[in-house]
Amino acid sequence: MQGGGPTRVINSTLVGVARQARVRELELIGVRRGIEGILGDRPNIIHFSDINDGRLDLISRTPGAALGTTRVKPTQKDCEKIVDLLIENNIKYLFYIGGNDTALAVQLMDTYAKSKGADIVFTHVIKTIDNDVPVNDHTPGYGSAARYVASVVRGAALDNLALPGIYLAVTMGRNAGFLTAASALARSKNIPELGPHIICLPEKEFVESDFLSQIHQTYSRLGRAVIVVSEGIWIMKDGQKVELTKLLKEGSKNGNGNGEDGFYHPQLSGSGALADHLSARITAELNIRRVRGDTLGYAQRSFLEGYSEVDWNEALMIGVDAVNYAVDGHVSGSVALLANRGVIYRSHTTTCGLSEVADKVRVLPEEFIATNGHDITPAFIEYLTPLIGIPLLEVDTFLQVDRKRRL
Amino acid sequence: MQGGGPTRVINSTLVGVARQARVRELELIGVRRGIEGILGDRPNIIHFSDINDGRLDLISRTPGAALGTTRVKPTQKDCEKIVDLLIENNIKYLFYIGGNDTALAVQLMDTYAKSKGADIVFTHVIKTIDNDVPVNDHTPGYGSAARYVASVVRGAALDNLALPGIYLAVTMGRNAGFLTAASALARSKNIPELGPHIICLPEKEFVESDFLSQIHQTYSRLGRAVIVVSEGIWIMKDGQKVELTKLLKEGSKNGNGNGEDGFYHPQLSGSGALADHLSARITAELNIRRVRGDTLGYAQRSFLEGYSEVDWNEALMIGVDAVNYAVDGHVSGSVALLANRGVIYRSHTTTCGLSEVADKVRVLPEEFIATNGHDITPAFIEYLTPLIGIPLLEVDTFLQVDRKRRL
Repeated sequence: MQGGGPTRVINSTLVGVARQARVRELELIGVRRGIEGILGDRPNIIHFSDINDGRLDLISRTPGAALGTTRVKPTQKDCEKIVDLLIENNIKYLFYIGGNDTALAVQLMDTYAKSKGADIVFTHVIKTIDNDVPVNDHTPGYGSAARYVASVVRGAALDNLALPGIYLAVTMGRNAGFLTAASALARSKNIPELGPHIICLPEKEFVESDFLSQIHQTYSRLGRAVIVVSEGIWIMKDGQKVELTKLLKEGSKNGNGNGEDGFYHPQLSGSGALADHLSARITAELNIRRVRGDTLGYAQRSFLEGYSEVDWNEALMIGVDAVNYAVDGHVSGSVALLANRGVIYRSHTTTCGLSEVADKVRVLPEEFIATNGHDITPAFIEYLTPLIGIPLLEVDTFLQVDRKRRL
Repeated sequence: MQGGGPTRVINSTLVGVARQARVRELELIGVRRGIEGILGDRPNIIHFSDINDGRLDLISRTPGAALGTTRVKPTQKDCEKIVDLLIENNIKYLFYIGGNDTALAVQLMDTYAKSKGADIVFTHVIKTIDNDVPVNDHTPGYGSAARYVASVVRGAALDNLALPGIYLAVTMGRNAGFLTAASALARSKNIPELGPHIICLPEKEFVESDFLSQIHQTYSRLGRAVIVVSEGIWIMKDGQKVELTKLLKEGSKNGNGNGEDGFYHPQLSGSGALADHLSARITAELNIRRVRGDTLGYAQRSFLEGYSEVDWNEALMIGVDAVNYAVDGHVSGSVALLANRGVIYRSHTTTCGLSEVADKVRVLPEEFIATNGHDITPAFIEYLTPLIGIPLLEVDTFLQVDRKRRL
């Protein structure tokens, strides 16, 4: 099964499981639409023995979850029903590819199965573009999403250099700033001040006055600024952390942005509201004419081309190893990705207990956040660089970039 | 000089001019920031004789305009001042890479120079992602932008197939639907109903009730829908064509979306307002829970990776040929791109009068628009396919896509 939001390489993991299941002589069944599919009146399944190698190759390089997925979180009752179904059908292993939510569901199933004395191995196989899962050095899906963000921001920063003003991009990653931070790879050794100049992470409180003052400083110095902001930025309100997107949503419900003419009813997931709000604040407070805000959107997890080959390989490896751990070790758990960063980068897998990842969140560690709070450290660049695969295309310009715009 | 919005391959044209100028033994000077740069107190220039081949190679593959550009439209006075400067400095040729606005400026300069009896050849070299210029089969910059749009939409449609609902993308291309139409290349021969299902072009009136009814039909049939909308869609209001973005802007000015709390002041260029508005209308009128709207943003013209190699080559060719036309023909004009679509696709350049392109707009011809008004024809696919370079990555799925979602 596949659970939660797709990543660019989630199907590589699925194909890894399928290929290794064949090697280990398991009969593998795929469930369409995860929890929803298995709980339907007639379970919605496919037999991998019917699928030829050519099709597996094609699927392994396809974005989106090839089995389909769901946002439905199973209740305790749902989990029990699934386990009963597995017992009834003499299923011996369950592989569930998903994030930290999915791990929790797997844990519930495992606990119930053990209480029934059933001999079923439950294996959670990690994926998430957010990279916010403990134990793992990084998660499959992150490298490709990071590569996309860095590619967009490098291109947009060059556009902004050619036609100066403020460019602001909002990235995914509500709880952890790994994806927002990845925009720092957009910087170029040939163009010292290309940007991004300001990176707003969800690990730090968003203080609007500081934000505007940083932009003012950069704009005064360069005549332009490139800013990357996490969708999860928050402020303190009545002693509580409140996400800006939540405030905007409430604002729109309370009449602002919700006119009686039927126009303008903003929503927030898959919406441009945060970028539009911040752009409007910059225009209003700093009196800068050319301010542009992009919300990077679904392409972060599904863009067809230029994904990280390293990410794709690791996603495949974690699927292959999941089968081996389950068959050889015969214990339930979560498969995690580790890495050694010596002269050469190498990654490998390990297993951990389901409780170590279930519903747990890892944020960007302090050593990766610059002391000024709105940038990252060289240590983060070292951490991220091998994950995006081949280096980004290098660039150059005829413009003078190290001083204020000269006309 | 480079004018207007950058494209992914505008620097390939610049490098084409630079390399051929060297072959033809011209001393080439680059003006930074176009009109703004030449009219400054101290013209902001570079000498191409100072630039080595390695740097030209790097620049030719870099997004953004390497000389910088401007949105400033020169007045008649500005054009006269520029021509006087050219005469004064004994400049014999002017190459101006830009869109149909730029052609108008070039025409003004040419007319004035002729009236002064000056022997200067003015050459306009076309670029625009919008592909909305007459005479040309297509314009450099379009193929790469089209490839990006198709890549995003194919990936997002697969994501939408995995996690069903409504996915809506807003593309650039205010006056002509070429870029919106390019999303049709996202369709896959392996996945018949992948999408996009509805394509809203600026060549046709946007009728909200029809739009909602088309979505309702697709959603009823498939449990999902992928919709691509031009930023330039318009409705009839008091007998006049009015762009939806303009209405939204006015709506927000009149209090809707412009609350006194300082939150939510939408703007429209580089904003998510149209996608958010349409998503909200779909949610409200069709009662569909999962509706997501992406505004594709600046990456359409500046995305670093996976640009069309065909586009890049044609952009180089048009720069090279511009120099030859100017030196050999010694008449002012605009360089245009033509193509033959036989068994093998071939393109070549020609010249036309400045007045044939200056301020002129070409829209998507009727033969490229499906009779239902919200799709394109096979003829358009034939037209577009060679322009995006190597075919998009082919994809597949384990989901059943030809019938309503089965759980």
